[in-house]
Amino acid sequence: MTSKKVVELFYDVVSPYSWLGFEVMCRYRNVWNIELKLRPAFLGGIMQGSGNKPPGLVPNKFLYMTKDLERLAKYFNVPLESPSNPAEAMFVKGSLSAMRFVTAVQEMEKSGDEQVERVSRELWRRIWSEDKDITEPASLSEAAMKAGLSESEIKELLNKYTTQKIKDKLKFSSQDALNYGAFGFPLIVCHVEGKPEMFFGSDRFELMAHCIGEKWLGPQPDKSAAKL
Amino acid sequence: MTSKKVVELFYDVVSPYSWLGFEVMCRYRNVWNIELKLRPAFLGGIMQGSGNKPPGLVPNKFLYMTKDLERLAKYFNVPLESPSNPAEAMFVKGSLSAMRFVTAVQEMEKSGDEQVERVSRELWRRIWSEDKDITEPASLSEAAMKAGLSESEIKELLNKYTTQKIKDKLKFSSQDALNYGAFGFPLIVCHVEGKPEMFFGSDRFELMAHCIGEKWLGPQPDKSAAKL
Repeated sequence: MTSKKVVELFYDVVSPYSWLGFEVMCRYRNVWNIELKLRPAFLGGIMQGSGNKPPGLVPNKFLYMTKDLERLAKYFNVPLESPSNPAEAMFVKGSLSAMRFVTAVQEMEKSGDEQVERVSRELWRRIWSEDKDITEPASLSEAAMKAGLSESEIKELLNKYTTQKIKDKLKFSSQDALNYGAFGFPLIVCHVEGKPEMFFGSDRFELMAHCIGEKWLGPQPDKSAAKL
Repeated sequence: MTSKKVVELFYDVVSPYSWLGFEVMCRYRNVWNIELKLRPAFLGGIMQGSGNKPPGLVPNKFLYMTKDLERLAKYFNVPLESPSNPAEAMFVKGSLSAMRFVTAVQEMEKSGDEQVERVSRELWRRIWSEDKDITEPASLSEAAMKAGLSESEIKELLNKYTTQKIKDKLKFSSQDALNYGAFGFPLIVCHVEGKPEMFFGSDRFELMAHCIGEKWLGPQPDKSAAKL
């Protein structure tokens, strides 16, 4: 048995394309010989650090992305739906507290990242499926509850997610992504023979599979695992 | 036999991702039940008309695209190589005369688009493989000669490609792309049950196949057709 290739997935729940990439990678962690490392980070910091601008500022691009996401969501079987006011949800309200919360979950979780996975998914479901808030403590609690965390765990997280330690951890993670060359999310970094191979977006899986010596079987390699 | 679905491919030879999309679609025109319509257009006009900015202006994005193109070129089996000074080739010298020349080829060609296909490919080969000029009349002649056009045809093209008629034809084609919602190239428009389905870039073929009821077999569906 060959050793598993480490694959890092940098994401932010404010990013709909990250949700698609996240679900695909979570499905493939059981199909490919990889060790998936979830790397919650802050997209706002990436855009600022790289000097990039949100693509939706160009009207034709915004229209296209809305349609593109709708088609991809169906094809990927992810229940993604645009919020009624995407600009407000993404740029005014944003995801800083949500990503600090996910970072606190990761800090708290002793082994594996099952809770990080589930809490991230519930936050995406709120903002990118149910048009709900992800900035208030009550919203974060609700997401954590749906993700199956206990009341005492949620209490601990609420005490923790605004501490300097967690703020710094999220900053470091975002800086890691920038150091790899990020200018947006998702960023997937495959470690192949000691070298990082970076893939931006949710449209390079076939190429990625080719690069890591695996086979791309479409966005739903195991139909039963695709229930969200 | 069902009637063929019309697929329009808007492209500019200044765009390397367009080359990848062009080769893939030229391969699939023999595999899928489609009628491919080549639509040479002017990317500069699309960027201006949509208010979009070249992605390479963000340094991390430029670095990523260089690497991404290198990997994709290999995987797609297209002999794409960056020119020594991409910014000069793309933004200073540009493709206005080259795309007028291709437009003149299309105007001259009586039936089909074999000559348009071959001349476009030779122009791409010059700028995106051999680091050669595509702005001077001598460069355009050379590309046309390699594409198999006769001396008299080339003479006619050189008389024609700077006329108002050809300039207007290129403008109309670019305006068509903008009307479909273009903000960059390649733009592939599939006409499905009377409705246009747009796909931007060279990374939506799997989704496109799904939308038009065909099967994606990777970038080289017929290995023998992939010789460039």
